[in-house]
This record gives sequence, structure tokens and C-alpha cells, in this order.
Amino acid sequence: MKNYKLIIQYEGTKYSGWQSQGNTTNTIQAKLEGVLCKMLGQPVEIHGSGRTDAGVHAKGQTANFKADTKKTKEEILEYLNTYLPQDIGVVHIEEVPLNFHSRLHAKKKTYMYRIWNSEIPNVLDRRFLYHCPQKLDIEKMKEASAYLIGQHDFKSFCANKRMKKSTDRIIYKIDILKIGDEIQFIFCGNGFLYNMIRIMVGTLVEVGEGKRKPKEMPTIMEAKNRELAAGTMPAQGLTLLNVQY
Amino acid sequence: MKNYKLIIQYEGTKYSGWQSQGNTTNTIQAKLEGVLCKMLGQPVEIHGSGRTDAGVHAKGQTANFKADTKKTKEEILEYLNTYLPQDIGVVHIEEVPLNFHSRLHAKKKTYMYRIWNSEIPNVLDRRFLYHCPQKLDIEKMKEASAYLIGQHDFKSFCANKRMKKSTDRIIYKIDILKIGDEIQFIFCGNGFLYNMIRIMVGTLVEVGEGKRKPKEMPTIMEAKNRELAAGTMPAQGLTLLNVQY
Repeated sequence: MKNYKLIIQYEGTKYSGWQSQGNTTNTIQAKLEGVLCKMLGQPVEIHGSGRTDAGVHAKGQTANFKADTKKTKEEILEYLNTYLPQDIGVVHIEEVPLNFHSRLHAKKKTYMYRIWNSEIPNVLDRRFLYHCPQKLDIEKMKEASAYLIGQHDFKSFCANKRMKKSTDRIIYKIDILKIGDEIQFIFCGNGFLYNMIRIMVGTLVEVGEGKRKPKEMPTIMEAKNRELAAGTMPAQGLTLLNVQY
Repeated sequence: MKNYKLIIQYEGTKYSGWQSQGNTTNTIQAKLEGVLCKMLGQPVEIHGSGRTDAGVHAKGQTANFKADTKKTKEEILEYLNTYLPQDIGVVHIEEVPLNFHSRLHAKKKTYMYRIWNSEIPNVLDRRFLYHCPQKLDIEKMKEASAYLIGQHDFKSFCANKRMKKSTDRIIYKIDILKIGDEIQFIFCGNGFLYNMIRIMVGTLVEVGEGKRKPKEMPTIMEAKNRELAAGTMPAQGLTLLNVQY
């Protein structure tokens, strides 16, 4: 038995997410398992570093699966990329120790949320951007984002109201970059709660619009109440960039 | 009567090109004319700086149309972007003198051809790239491209065999950039013949693969024979970047 680690890219537009909570098989995980099963002639379970929601993209999702095969890793990679749909691709494969688990051993994850902040459209990148025509104040959003860095209880930024496990997380870094008319929010943390990044970005955008003040952030966080933060931003702006081990 | 100049972005994937030679209405031009006609209540003809083929994209196609309207240019821009399909967008509008013609007055056009030169796929940008797994020799392609610069008869690189007009064109500049695993070919010229860029890139790629030598380029050009150049590259890698007046 061997354990393989994969790095996977996908455009999430058409999918119900990495792994569905319901019965649908329209997930990235199901597509990968389908091709691996076809290749190996037996059911294979693939473990992602975490779920990405419906519509969220990935440049570096990480997953692992165990299999007993004589194929080389190059052959597995080629087979996967031949039979996967065009919007899913495997960019790296390596053999890892049998005890490696892509979710349990993940140390840091980096996500990017992209906003197109202009009145004119961005046609070519539209699938990966959220279009916000109203000008956002970058400096105010940077000031607000500083309050989120560090170890905190992020319950106010968690969409799962029945979350029983700890809602403590560490955010190591938040970069807010302005590149032409595009704003990129880059979050690096030890893990993120359900919809956490999309709710944080929604709240930062309200700061950027002048609807909230940067210094409200600690109050929102300390309340541990989802009602105080802003709405959840659309999935299409979000991309999982990489997972570190 | 006023004359408006538009700068237009589109993802060409689903379209039969800027303007079809046949009967199809599945063209960028037809979509724009349809929305303008709806807005103005009368048929409108829009003139592009040139045709782009089926599947070719644009970041800065330029076109003009004449209309008698009380709407401001901001209102026209907003109307267009509200009713155009998501894969077509107008990024700029201005009023120009009545005698301005986007095709006849175009001085320089810049096109980019993008190749993804890696064995692993590029999922997120796949619609705008041609995937070539075999490693290409950039220096050899640069050496070959230098022969194309200047004023020449480009008949060997023209797909229209019954072309009766002059096949002389000027290429001002060719840049070949390597950005990670991507190769960008950027062509600036006073105009390009039917399929000319895709045939030039096809020929340069054969140089990059080692199938041809750079010094064969003048021979190909002097022969004025389409048979001597390489095949036409797929449309999806090509983007019209801008048109200068």
C-alpha cells in the first residue's frame, strides 16, 4: 500500500464544492475518486485538506489517497489529467509516508479573494472576481484587517451556527493588494471556519465603503455573534492558493 | 448625428468571431448591434477595427458606430454593459469626429498569443492558452522572429489563397516572453492578414521544437507560398490587446 499526495487545481464554477454535504456527486472529490477508481479497478477514497464551498476555485488544493498499484507516479498523473474534466487538473504528485493525512497535518492555508473594483466590467477574468463598482478605501480596509491577525475566537465570522468544536483560529497574515482596478485579499491562517473568509471580506468591504469603522472589528469579534458581521461574499471571488505542511 | 468609438473586451470561446463570413448571428458584432438597436429603436451598424476569428479573444478591440441620440456616453456605456452577454463588455466610450473610422484609421494593432509550455495542465487560464507540453527553445524562436520584423510580403503566412489585395505588412515589434511555464508572443504591426499571427506562431513553435532552423524564415517569406509555413495555431491562444490610432 502506498500513500500519494496530490496538488490539485480547479475552477469551481460548475461544481457543488470539493465535497458535498448532500447526495450530489457533482463535486471535485467525486470526479477525482471516479477517475482513480477507473484506473485502479477498485473504490478509492481521497482526503482533501478541507472542503471548499460550491463555486470556490483552487490553485493548490492538497489531497491524499492510498492505493496498491504498480503504476509509477508519472503514469498516475498522466492518467488523471487525461480523464479528469478540463476544469480539474492535478499539477503535482508525490509518494508520502503512510501516516500522512492532508487534512489533519495541514499547518497553514492561504486563500485569495479577488474584487474587481471598477464601474467597467472585467470580462476575461469574470469567473474569478466579484464585481464591486463602488470605490473601496484600501487604507481603511487594511486598518480593519489588522484586528483580525493573531489567535482569536472567530465565531462571529462562522456561518455554521451549530458549530460544536472550537472556533479559535490563528490568522498569520492578511495582505490587501491593489493591482490596477483589482483588489486582492490574501489570508494565511492555520485553518478557516465555514464561510469565514467570505464573511471577513464582506465585513472589510463594508469598512471600505464607509459603512463601518475599522475600530468596530474588535467589537464584532468579541461579541462571538454571527449577526454582527456583514453578509457572506459570493463564492466565485475565492481561490484556495496553497496548503502548507 | 454623433460618432462613438468603443473599446471592447470579449472572450471569444462561444462566438463565431467578430463578424461572420456566413449567415450566423453568433458574432460579437451582432450582439453589440442587437443591444444598440434595442437602445436606439433603430438598426445600427458597428464597424470593428478588423475581424477576429472564431474563438479569438479581445482585451481592446475598437469599433465605432453613428447614432442620433440624447443619451450621454455614460448612459450608453451602462446600457451596453447591462444588456450585453457576460462574455462581452465595453470598457471605454468616447465621441469622435464624424469621419473617424475604426478600421480605416487604425495605425497599429497589438496581438498576444499565449502558450502553456508544461506537461502539467493550467486549469484556471485554459480558455486563453494553447497547451504545448513539449519544451520550446525560446532563444531559437526569438532568433527566428527577428526575420519577420519590418516591411515584408507576408503571403506565405496568409490563409486566404485568393487574396487579391496587397499582402505587404509592417511588423514593428515581436516580443517573446517566458513567464514561469507560460510563453507570450506579442506582435505589433500595422495590420495582419487572415490567420497571419496564428501561422507565424505555428512556424515559430516548429523552430522552438527544433523541427526548423531560425535561418529558414527568410526562405519561407521569400517563397510567398503558404505551403512552406507551418500549420495554423488554435484560435483560443490569441487575444487582440489593443488598436492604436
